Amino acid sequence: MKKIMNDPSSILDEMLDGIAFAYDNLVERLPESNVIHRKTSHNKKVALVSGGGSGHEPAHAGFVGQGMLSAAVCGEVFTSPTPDQILTGIKASDEGQGVFLIIKNYSGDIMNFDMAKELAEMEDIAVDFVVVDDDIAVKDSTYTAGKRGIAGTVFVHKILGAAADEGFSLKEIKQLADQLIPAIKSLGVALGAATVPEVGKPGFELAEDEIEFGVGIHGEPGYRREKIKPSKELAKEMIKKLKDEFQWEKGEKYALLVNGMGATPLMEQFIFMNDVKELLIKEGLELPFKKVGDYMTSIDMQGLSLTLVKLEDDKWLDYLNAPVKTIAW
Amino acid sequence: MKKIMNDPSSILDEMLDGIAFAYDNLVERLPESNVIHRKTSHNKKVALVSGGGSGHEPAHAGFVGQGMLSAAVCGEVFTSPTPDQILTGIKASDEGQGVFLIIKNYSGDIMNFDMAKELAEMEDIAVDFVVVDDDIAVKDSTYTAGKRGIAGTVFVHKILGAAADEGFSLKEIKQLADQLIPAIKSLGVALGAATVPEVGKPGFELAEDEIEFGVGIHGEPGYRREKIKPSKELAKEMIKKLKDEFQWEKGEKYALLVNGMGATPLMEQFIFMNDVKELLIKEGLELPFKKVGDYMTSIDMQGLSLTLVKLEDDKWLDYLNAPVKTIAW
Repeated sequence: MKKIMNDPSSILDEMLDGIAFAYDNLVERLPESNVIHRKTSHNKKVALVSGGGSGHEPAHAGFVGQGMLSAAVCGEVFTSPTPDQILTGIKASDEGQGVFLIIKNYSGDIMNFDMAKELAEMEDIAVDFVVVDDDIAVKDSTYTAGKRGIAGTVFVHKILGAAADEGFSLKEIKQLADQLIPAIKSLGVALGAATVPEVGKPGFELAEDEIEFGVGIHGEPGYRREKIKPSKELAKEMIKKLKDEFQWEKGEKYALLVNGMGATPLMEQFIFMNDVKELLIKEGLELPFKKVGDYMTSIDMQGLSLTLVKLEDDKWLDYLNAPVKTIAW
Repeated sequence: MKKIMNDPSSILDEMLDGIAFAYDNLVERLPESNVIHRKTSHNKKVALVSGGGSGHEPAHAGFVGQGMLSAAVCGEVFTSPTPDQILTGIKASDEGQGVFLIIKNYSGDIMNFDMAKELAEMEDIAVDFVVVDDDIAVKDSTYTAGKRGIAGTVFVHKILGAAADEGFSLKEIKQLADQLIPAIKSLGVALGAATVPEVGKPGFELAEDEIEFGVGIHGEPGYRREKIKPSKELAKEMIKKLKDEFQWEKGEKYALLVNGMGATPLMEQFIFMNDVKELLIKEGLELPFKKVGDYMTSIDMQGLSLTLVKLEDDKWLDYLNAPVKTIAW
């Protein structure tokens, strides 16, 4: 394992200090915590808090700032943050209108965010939440009951963030979130596994000519391994799976994210985007919002995911386009 | 070699179509060319044009847009664009005030951009240029006489772009560029080589426990190979080399970029940034502008570079902070 790091046990600590230093105009690390908190005030709006295990950078700290999250609570690599850390994030973010938690569907996160919610409510902070489960690859997985939450979470941060900025109440944010979650679906493909620094070797093995469809962002198993195929063929399979889920019709509007997993050059992500373009145009979909890049990674995993959001409400497109002040959107 | 692509010979074409589709709100691909051109008008300002071989994404197409480049001319992977392509970029960008070329110091780029300049002048377009040579690792290299141009180029795009937006004449842009270039210095380290798709194997070999200081963005040799060290030690050596070049004194202001080479997780880049922080604060420097991420990559090379810009003029900091509309700044 070759990595630019010091002691594997101090990775989270050093990374958070690095983030807070590099972007001290936008965020701060709350003292004696693993919470990255926005510097700009929310002006008495509902605050959004997310987080989870680290190793998915820029998620979630990169989305802290005006128009998106108030705080990201960062666990050790691929490990849920503890309830007390989440509570710290909630308390620092609340501005009297309540706090809304955006949780990716992993059992550890669900448990700890839920516990933090209870602790916060005992301190009279109104808290509500949504669970993101956009990964259509498999049902139930290594760390998940139901579907996993992956790159689509970034769209949840953005759309709910703009709505919170617009002055939505906690109840209205919850309603919007409940409408939004089923409209977001993702699917990934891996060419190589991530290496967790404290483990020191890749999380799974793929043969030199093999890929795996549907791998999760912690290397959880996908649904099929096979010989590597041209980008066009990968795109075809992934679009077909997404179409089966959405059952879309001509003229519908979608937002689109091609997301790199951490060690996939932008060159490959753009080539894949070009193949996706051909297929979706053939389907007659409108694609008024698109993004390409590393948004929800899996340390140094080689691969990418494709996320589509059915834009059921024109307002959602406005929310996606609303300006933000964050590190990574 | 595992890559998400189709035919290696169509990589440039498909990538450019992917970029133009993904960001059709910001850029367009000029018809029958390898030029990514901004959609927004410059309003009769001097136009900046850059480019070079592909494989360094998001450079340079990611920096096309309001406040930065008017066009990026994209060659095949690690290959200079041809003079006629560069001429196409110049002609599309000129708005009557002349065109300023930002060229990384590689012999092929120098030759072809110079030829394009002459062709443009024959068509009565005023053209001037600057050569970026920020890499302090070695003098003269595989494809370079003198020092190589690497990630510091992105700061040249940004600072000159803001000055052009402010209404600088071609002559004033040239003066600013000549002052800026010696104030920008970079140094890289590689943990693993890039694989050019048409070649199919890594450009150089490093042992499982080896790193190389000073590797160029096309895998050109650096100045020393040795056993991998902790991030703190890498930072120490790189800061020492940069200090020797700058001969800085306490209280001086610098801008700072930690740049990933394409396959280096943000986690590692932030840890390295944290080590850089400790050292530069000890040196007594002020660091009012900082950035971390993949800005000038080498396909899927594992490694990073560190760029410092001595902010000799407070105006430069304003230029760095000026808003832009681009894909990747």
